[in-house]
Amino acid sequence: MRKSIATVCLSGTLEEKLTAIAAAGFDGIEIFENDLLASPLSPEQVRDRAAELGLTIDLFQPFRDVEAVPEDLLARTLRRAEKKFAVMERLGADLMLVCSSVSPAALDDDALAAGQLRLLAARAAAHGIRVAYEALAWGRHVNTYDHAWRIVRQADHPALGTCLDSFHILSRGSDPKGIEEIPGEKIFFLQLADAPLMAMDVLQWSRHYRCFPGQGGLDVAGLLAHVLRTGYEGPLSLEVFNDVFRQGDTDRTAVDALRSLIALEETAGRTDLPAPVVPTGFAFAELASTGPELPALLTELGFARTGRHRSKPVELWEQGDARIVLNSGLDATTGHPEPALAAIGLETPDPAASAGRARALLAPVLPRHRAVADAPLDAVAAPDSTELFFCRTEHPDHPSWTGDFRACVISPRAASASPAGITHVDHVALTQPRHHFDEASLFYRAVLGLRPHESLELADPYGLLRSRAVSGADGSVRLALNVAQIRPGSGPSGSLWQHIALHSRDIVATARRLRERGAPLLPIPDNYYDDLEARHELDPGLHRTLRELGLLYDRDDSGTFLHLYTATVGRVFFEIVQRIDGYQGYGAANAPVRLAAQHARTR
Amino acid sequence: MRKSIATVCLSGTLEEKLTAIAAAGFDGIEIFENDLLASPLSPEQVRDRAAELGLTIDLFQPFRDVEAVPEDLLARTLRRAEKKFAVMERLGADLMLVCSSVSPAALDDDALAAGQLRLLAARAAAHGIRVAYEALAWGRHVNTYDHAWRIVRQADHPALGTCLDSFHILSRGSDPKGIEEIPGEKIFFLQLADAPLMAMDVLQWSRHYRCFPGQGGLDVAGLLAHVLRTGYEGPLSLEVFNDVFRQGDTDRTAVDALRSLIALEETAGRTDLPAPVVPTGFAFAELASTGPELPALLTELGFARTGRHRSKPVELWEQGDARIVLNSGLDATTGHPEPALAAIGLETPDPAASAGRARALLAPVLPRHRAVADAPLDAVAAPDSTELFFCRTEHPDHPSWTGDFRACVISPRAASASPAGITHVDHVALTQPRHHFDEASLFYRAVLGLRPHESLELADPYGLLRSRAVSGADGSVRLALNVAQIRPGSGPSGSLWQHIALHSRDIVATARRLRERGAPLLPIPDNYYDDLEARHELDPGLHRTLRELGLLYDRDDSGTFLHLYTATVGRVFFEIVQRIDGYQGYGAANAPVRLAAQHARTR
Repeated sequence: MRKSIATVCLSGTLEEKLTAIAAAGFDGIEIFENDLLASPLSPEQVRDRAAELGLTIDLFQPFRDVEAVPEDLLARTLRRAEKKFAVMERLGADLMLVCSSVSPAALDDDALAAGQLRLLAARAAAHGIRVAYEALAWGRHVNTYDHAWRIVRQADHPALGTCLDSFHILSRGSDPKGIEEIPGEKIFFLQLADAPLMAMDVLQWSRHYRCFPGQGGLDVAGLLAHVLRTGYEGPLSLEVFNDVFRQGDTDRTAVDALRSLIALEETAGRTDLPAPVVPTGFAFAELASTGPELPALLTELGFARTGRHRSKPVELWEQGDARIVLNSGLDATTGHPEPALAAIGLETPDPAASAGRARALLAPVLPRHRAVADAPLDAVAAPDSTELFFCRTEHPDHPSWTGDFRACVISPRAASASPAGITHVDHVALTQPRHHFDEASLFYRAVLGLRPHESLELADPYGLLRSRAVSGADGSVRLALNVAQIRPGSGPSGSLWQHIALHSRDIVATARRLRERGAPLLPIPDNYYDDLEARHELDPGLHRTLRELGLLYDRDDSGTFLHLYTATVGRVFFEIVQRIDGYQGYGAANAPVRLAAQHARTR
Repeated sequence: MRKSIATVCLSGTLEEKLTAIAAAGFDGIEIFENDLLASPLSPEQVRDRAAELGLTIDLFQPFRDVEAVPEDLLARTLRRAEKKFAVMERLGADLMLVCSSVSPAALDDDALAAGQLRLLAARAAAHGIRVAYEALAWGRHVNTYDHAWRIVRQADHPALGTCLDSFHILSRGSDPKGIEEIPGEKIFFLQLADAPLMAMDVLQWSRHYRCFPGQGGLDVAGLLAHVLRTGYEGPLSLEVFNDVFRQGDTDRTAVDALRSLIALEETAGRTDLPAPVVPTGFAFAELASTGPELPALLTELGFARTGRHRSKPVELWEQGDARIVLNSGLDATTGHPEPALAAIGLETPDPAASAGRARALLAPVLPRHRAVADAPLDAVAAPDSTELFFCRTEHPDHPSWTGDFRACVISPRAASASPAGITHVDHVALTQPRHHFDEASLFYRAVLGLRPHESLELADPYGLLRSRAVSGADGSVRLALNVAQIRPGSGPSGSLWQHIALHSRDIVATARRLRERGAPLLPIPDNYYDDLEARHELDPGLHRTLRELGLLYDRDDSGTFLHLYTATVGRVFFEIVQRIDGYQGYGAANAPVRLAAQHARTR
């Protein structure tokens, strides 16, 4: 299906928006009139620029407060409309959006509304223009899609149809099933927006919090299914008002937007997108690291250096099924402190199919030569620029990235660092760029087929951390996506922390060993343990052990969670976790204590 | 009255908060337990630090989910309480806040609630601790202050009283008059918070949008009057949860907080604060300027250089009653581009009284030697660091700052720049520091007695501009307070623009002269004028003139507004305005067009 977007969705000037929309791959645009008014480009220049970029102008919007006014106001409305028809002719736009009136002058009179809209449509038709009438959720008398449709039907003019907007329909809790009673050819346009579920004034909700389909809590896919059953053949078009997107990078928001429509189209069965290939585990985590800190820390954590790359300054460290790649050959041009997480290797049953789906969903494909291994390795860039490699480690049907490493003789130092009970990577936490948090969860859901969990707000001493986990159905791949909204300059590179959580089969034993070895662990205040004792009736021995070893404790409906943190090195720290009896969370209750400790001390 | 603040109101670690609270001048604190839990300080260390700073610990909070549980859960609650009593004893805190239960286990049984609270109070009393029971607005069964009080009365224990919280009471629309029926000695504590009026879920509203009294839309002063009539003698204590304050500067938020209580206390007639002296006009605007741009621009705008300071590198420029001071001797250590607005001189009938009130309301007092004049001039720093001088220009009873300027012989160049119709400074627009927008409107209201107008959100191509005007009753002093929430790096020093709006008695003539002189004016897109013609049925001659001269047009209930902008020089630009027939606004409808043009071009 053709895909379109309203210019209001994006940050920037009209010219910047057109360029970004075309570069992302959209077919058309809705011109949001305020963008035109603020532009130095004439309507003719906008028309030419859109044509040059291969974009059609699918809608001119909005035209307000038309229907059901007393007769003496009608002449003014029609005069105003004629001026806008003239602008539309200069733009080469032939469809005008009319929103249901919010004017105190409007009367509650469907026959009058139909008559006046019919008149408007007749005037429009004389310019080769059609009119799409839409119910705003806060319209004065007309605020449901079926009411707008009844008026359109009553007006009965070929140049008058309706426009459906998923937000206006779903935000009011209207049942979208009735859409199927509208003939497809009378649905002149379809605007799509999602929104997080919030109990607030619908106008404010609409103006500030809309998001792209799949990023919120509305059933946009369900609504689309009803629309398609009518035979609607117009474009899928996005109309999103969002304070955060308004401040975001124009190009990447445009790509995020188109990705949302491609994923939505898939739910409607209208595409031949390659099926998702959900990753089954972490093959490795790759850290950019030139100094001695990380090898020392990995040794203290019980990792052994097991391989050296044949041709690159890259080492492989292993413990159980946890593999860490240390790369000292990465170009440190990012300006961020090292060490930093550079890449994640994801196990997938079909790396080529994983990469194919990622490509189809507009993930930036990376050159294969960046791979740690010489074996061909498909990779894409995640929203935070972490590289995602699709791997099939040591499987007979597929070249393994590990084949490029020469086994190390275990050094005497490494040998003394015998395993500390780490079994595998439990999760990886990534910090998303400010203004692109919604993009991240959509990316991981659509591209990798991971399931987004609830979005949380965690108290940081200097602000808030927003956090949302995504995971595979069986929990074998878990990512925590964070964005820090904290005072600028508070904490060393505070908004850029990344971490790797390693699972231990016996965290008490692991913690004891780490302490014996003098590993740099994050100190937890004694007050935390006093409170833990008050809140939970823990076995006194366990409570003593937790306090003694600086272990944090959480509990959910099914199980318990024990965890600890290392000090931060560069941008990176490690967490050691033990999930007991099927605990599914990430210890969010302990995050404020952890964040305070991290702000207070960095290594 | 004693003034106190909950540690949760501020950003930072517990230690940073205590220091800032004491420095601002508070008498006491509420320890928000999470701040203690995340702190490396032991309760004893917190007690000692507070004592050292002269702060009393007035409340330990919150203790949750106590009342009306089935008997088998009661033992757990009491065990938990004993642990917290122990912490309170170590802290030296003798008042515990108990919030009404939100637990699904709680029963709707007032007698049970009263009995269990009585038991808790008896246990507390054994430790010398009292309990203040408060209704949360979203409590499961108890969510109004009168309900909480009925339970306290029924429990009838000397160590049990109630805590009143203005947000919980006013957010639900409860009538606070009933507070007067509670004996003052049974109101153990009073928590104060304001909030902007928002139609949203009360829990979210409370957790993210509370603000200090006088910064929102709740009648906190009215509530306080009822409380004082009971004979309440405890502290006035702030409890504010606010996402923005969480990220703000700790010290200045603490001062902002205390200022709100001082101003609130004034409404209750409990202070001998000097009365507000509302400024009656602008004496001058002082610009830091070393280059040739500003003198050239002022000349083009029709200003003449009329004075040179006797001893400083400072010039006075005048036109009508508009006076601009150009100071090339200011230390340019701010890192912001010049020219920049450094100070505003405000006319006041009693400069010493103005300064006295400002001091009493914690405005930072500036050394007098910074003044442009040698005549003593009282000055304070505004929240955005602009200096505010209190002046009485050329009045026989007061030394005038203008006396330090030697009259200039009008230079031939200046003479040719004959007046352009400017009569006076209409308003000055200041950009507030991010995270301190609420502070600014309270400052101008409390310190200067200016009236805050509605807060507006204006579309910027790269985000939003929040804007709120404050003005004297007669409109002779108007300030526009802005804060830009825009993409970092968009527009040259985009978030720091300041501007001076000059009133013209005939803006068409002024604009024509500026164009003739080639003054650098902001170009307005043609599309704006096409839309103006559609929206307003303007006289065609006027419409042609507006378009030709690049004038913007707005209209309110009483009159019309014509305005134009110069290009930006450094951080500063000028606006020329004409208010016709009592127009009261600031042309907000035109702000998006203006902002887009400014982002596109800076001189």
